[in-house]
Amino acid sequence: MKDLGKTFKNKDVLITGGLGFIGSTLARRLVEYGAKTTLVDSLIPQYGGNIFNIHGIEDRVKVNIADVRDEHGMDYLIQGKEYLFNLAGTLSHTDSMVDPYTDLEINCRAQLSILESCRKFNRDVKIVFSGTRGQYGKADYLPVDEKHPMHPTDINGINNMAGEWYHILYNNVYGIRATSLRLTNTFGPRHQMKHHKQGIINWFVRLALDGTEIKIFGDGKQIRDCNYVDDVVEALLLAAASEDTNGQIFNLGGIPANLEEIVKTIISLNGTGSYKLVPFPENSKKIEIGDYIADHSKIKKALGWEPKVELKEGLQKTIDYYKEHKEHYW
Amino acid sequence: MKDLGKTFKNKDVLITGGLGFIGSTLARRLVEYGAKTTLVDSLIPQYGGNIFNIHGIEDRVKVNIADVRDEHGMDYLIQGKEYLFNLAGTLSHTDSMVDPYTDLEINCRAQLSILESCRKFNRDVKIVFSGTRGQYGKADYLPVDEKHPMHPTDINGINNMAGEWYHILYNNVYGIRATSLRLTNTFGPRHQMKHHKQGIINWFVRLALDGTEIKIFGDGKQIRDCNYVDDVVEALLLAAASEDTNGQIFNLGGIPANLEEIVKTIISLNGTGSYKLVPFPENSKKIEIGDYIADHSKIKKALGWEPKVELKEGLQKTIDYYKEHKEHYW
Repeated sequence: MKDLGKTFKNKDVLITGGLGFIGSTLARRLVEYGAKTTLVDSLIPQYGGNIFNIHGIEDRVKVNIADVRDEHGMDYLIQGKEYLFNLAGTLSHTDSMVDPYTDLEINCRAQLSILESCRKFNRDVKIVFSGTRGQYGKADYLPVDEKHPMHPTDINGINNMAGEWYHILYNNVYGIRATSLRLTNTFGPRHQMKHHKQGIINWFVRLALDGTEIKIFGDGKQIRDCNYVDDVVEALLLAAASEDTNGQIFNLGGIPANLEEIVKTIISLNGTGSYKLVPFPENSKKIEIGDYIADHSKIKKALGWEPKVELKEGLQKTIDYYKEHKEHYW
Repeated sequence: MKDLGKTFKNKDVLITGGLGFIGSTLARRLVEYGAKTTLVDSLIPQYGGNIFNIHGIEDRVKVNIADVRDEHGMDYLIQGKEYLFNLAGTLSHTDSMVDPYTDLEINCRAQLSILESCRKFNRDVKIVFSGTRGQYGKADYLPVDEKHPMHPTDINGINNMAGEWYHILYNNVYGIRATSLRLTNTFGPRHQMKHHKQGIINWFVRLALDGTEIKIFGDGKQIRDCNYVDDVVEALLLAAASEDTNGQIFNLGGIPANLEEIVKTIISLNGTGSYKLVPFPENSKKIEIGDYIADHSKIKKALGWEPKVELKEGLQKTIDYYKEHKEHYW
């Protein structure tokens, strides 16, 4: 496996969505490695950007508040960067159905304009894009490999599919090296905790910490494939560092668990909490994707990546973090 | 097979892109059936809309000049319609690479807004969307069936993929009945003849009629799957008339031929003309998709559709049409 410290030392790195959950966790690793890291974030309320996420590394990163939909800003910011972790994007299934245009602007148009900025001003950059398992929709078979047909069940999944393909296209046509990792249910510290729309696992953690009864839709047996955020960051870095990833798409995943199992673990680690199984509300039912287990053998083979943090360990760290820093997230 | 005349008699039908190649040919059939047909077209120069395309049926259709990107206009126009043939869209591979934003606005944003209009004002409409074989990109195997992975090689293919999926999503989530036909190389009368960017077969016809030497890139052995426009119109009508197509995607195709064969046939039917094989220009090479043969067995099974017009017969009709009406297309 690559010596990531050596790879990123003194490198110019740009992270879109850099004040968000995964972006800020990634920034912490890059700062450790001595990378010159710039974070772009719009701090749109509800989206996940939080200035506290870079607490302790404020002086070692450059923060540029900007919206990735701003073409001219990105034209400037991309210049001279050696790596771009393109993580800005909306993630909410339900929001994308209520306001499909905003989802389109951010997940399609802004992605195109970032790539156009690269085409015009920095063709040498290496880009890692974060796709989503939502692109697959309801699984035809399990585990889901990268050849699984894409039939997304919400606007967000469709737009992410297009956003991912723009990257692969610019790799193939313009030689701007790009790869996409399709993320599953990522959880951990620094995730926004104000609403449930960007990740159910962190939301369960909030409810447990609040002492609110957790409602699980359906029979609780729906399987999600979970990754602790540090493992996702490791995958992003490995994907950036390798030339074998250019033009390639990789699934993450590797820690499947059903919702009831996840909730029980959270409650037991937290020491208190309760849950109840309730019927699916009509709207959620229609975009529910059923069980999901990722086949992550492609990235394991290509980059030696596999998740290292077990569900229990990751949840413990998550609970500890929010117990300590609650006031910055509630 | 359905009695199409009976199905569409007195029905309220809307065609976006209705003054274009396929839209106007479809309008002629609908008028024959006694449908109340409204054509929406923006008449953007270069796009294919041509008022001469409805010559002879002007008094039997309603023409509404509007851009499908105009949300408010579509909110009104969709009301009370029983069928929507949603054919407006850009088709140019090269234009989409030069100006990806316009392609996005028309093939993604406008599609979303048409569907939003239906969701708000007419959930009972049945929609037939025209997708494209460009969504598949370079074929992994031949013939290409609907399960073939999508890996488009240009922005247009990516955006059409998203546009198609919006339709399937609105079918699945909101119950707005929609189906998509993935068109291949459609040719015939009423196609624009001013440039080569929307279809190579008609362009070859123009060059032959002009007495200009036809340049075929590569060895001329690249296979395209061709459909005469009347066959495509038949498929659109059958797809609209059946409830079995809701939420389904179908390939068209069925007349594969290589480029040299097509050109030779055109020259021989035209009585004069010449061609030359030339190396691929660098830009075209990167978005060239290689051989394409569609597996159209799904639509054959579901609707009994198969192409009836042979290549030679279709080309003859095409040549005859343009010889007669050249001044309206050149």
